[in-house]
Amino acid sequence: MPRYRVTIEYDGTPFVGWQRQSCGASVQSCLSAAIAKFSSETVAVSGAGRTDAGVHALGQVAHFDLQRVWDTQTVQKALNFHLKPQPIAIIACAVTTQDFDARFSAIARHYRYRILARAAPPMLDRDRVWWVRGKMQPMAMAQAAATLIGRHDFTTFRAAGCQAQSAIKTLDRLAVTAAGEEILIEASARSFLHRQVRSMVGSLKLVGEGKWTAHHLRAALDAKDRSACGPVAPAAGLYLVRVDYPQPP
Amino acid sequence: MPRYRVTIEYDGTPFVGWQRQSCGASVQSCLSAAIAKFSSETVAVSGAGRTDAGVHALGQVAHFDLQRVWDTQTVQKALNFHLKPQPIAIIACAVTTQDFDARFSAIARHYRYRILARAAPPMLDRDRVWWVRGKMQPMAMAQAAATLIGRHDFTTFRAAGCQAQSAIKTLDRLAVTAAGEEILIEASARSFLHRQVRSMVGSLKLVGEGKWTAHHLRAALDAKDRSACGPVAPAAGLYLVRVDYPQPP
Repeated sequence: MPRYRVTIEYDGTPFVGWQRQSCGASVQSCLSAAIAKFSSETVAVSGAGRTDAGVHALGQVAHFDLQRVWDTQTVQKALNFHLKPQPIAIIACAVTTQDFDARFSAIARHYRYRILARAAPPMLDRDRVWWVRGKMQPMAMAQAAATLIGRHDFTTFRAAGCQAQSAIKTLDRLAVTAAGEEILIEASARSFLHRQVRSMVGSLKLVGEGKWTAHHLRAALDAKDRSACGPVAPAAGLYLVRVDYPQPP
Repeated sequence: MPRYRVTIEYDGTPFVGWQRQSCGASVQSCLSAAIAKFSSETVAVSGAGRTDAGVHALGQVAHFDLQRVWDTQTVQKALNFHLKPQPIAIIACAVTTQDFDARFSAIARHYRYRILARAAPPMLDRDRVWWVRGKMQPMAMAQAAATLIGRHDFTTFRAAGCQAQSAIKTLDRLAVTAAGEEILIEASARSFLHRQVRSMVGSLKLVGEGKWTAHHLRAALDAKDRSACGPVAPAAGLYLVRVDYPQPP
């Protein structure tokens, strides 16, 4: 029974998130439906990142098993055909081994967060950025961000409903760069807590506005207390960019 | 009577274009309506680039006169308020001199065209790029593009309905660069013929696909014949990026 690995791009705006919910369309359920339509098989689809409602993906990874052996280009084309008009596209498809698991084999997840800082609202990037009025100080944000890198108890930056057993995670990268009126925040780790990136971004925004210093951010981390976190950043600015796996031997 | 100069961003998707038409919403008419709502004055709005239906702007420039002297920040905020929910935003507003004309004072117009070359359709950039299946050769496109730079008779790359008196224009820049799966074509000139950028892009795409060589492109230019042009590129990939004016003395 072959296992297929797919790389997926989606506009998160109309979805309740990656995962199936009691109500509303999820990316996972749309994928399952498209797989069933072309293969007549009903299968479980497992994804690397359980993105929230409104969060986008440029390179989500998922796997599923089918009884039948298909050409991977055929799978990609058939899925893209049946996914229409949902804003989900398979951008790569490969056959992988049975020990590959999109979620548990991942060794790194890379997220990007986009903030647009200017007086006028975005027209071409509606639902794609967090629009923040007024000037931001990206240098101050970058310096403060460095304090979160490494192995920490991220309880402060964890959603109430987070199901992870431990709040201790290793954040490998948290880079803040400015490009014109846009501020990009790039975060990499083996895994993240629920809403961790948006929670960190929400607090970094306070630093960018001069309301917090790097010291405040560090104190928030050290507090290990959800109530010490700044307001969580909106979903529309967040992108799951890439998921890394070990190279096959 | 003060003259106001505004810089405008818009998503061209829902509009019949910049200019007022007998039917459908134009950017120009939406702007006039927003100006009337906040100032109670009915004025003509003159734009630098008469973008076609579906063409976007990151930095369109327009001017209009009002009887009353307003604070420019107030004008910007009021227009952005009254433009909602249309995807048009005023990103800058200034008072200028009576001899400034958004269209006739312009000394350079800069356009960008985005091609996405990959097997899967775009999900995050729907209505923002020209999706082209299969590999493109950006180096070949860049080399061929160079043949169009300079002063030429661009009859081949001019729409049938173009109202310009002469087809002779000077193209200052036509650069093709690749960024991942995306190909960017940047064109600069004092002024362009109607559909000139999309006509040139349509022919450059044939070069990128290996269907045309630089020689074919040059022969098309030399033919001075509309029927020698490749299929015109779709509007959704085109952006009016910036308009330049002489520095005030």
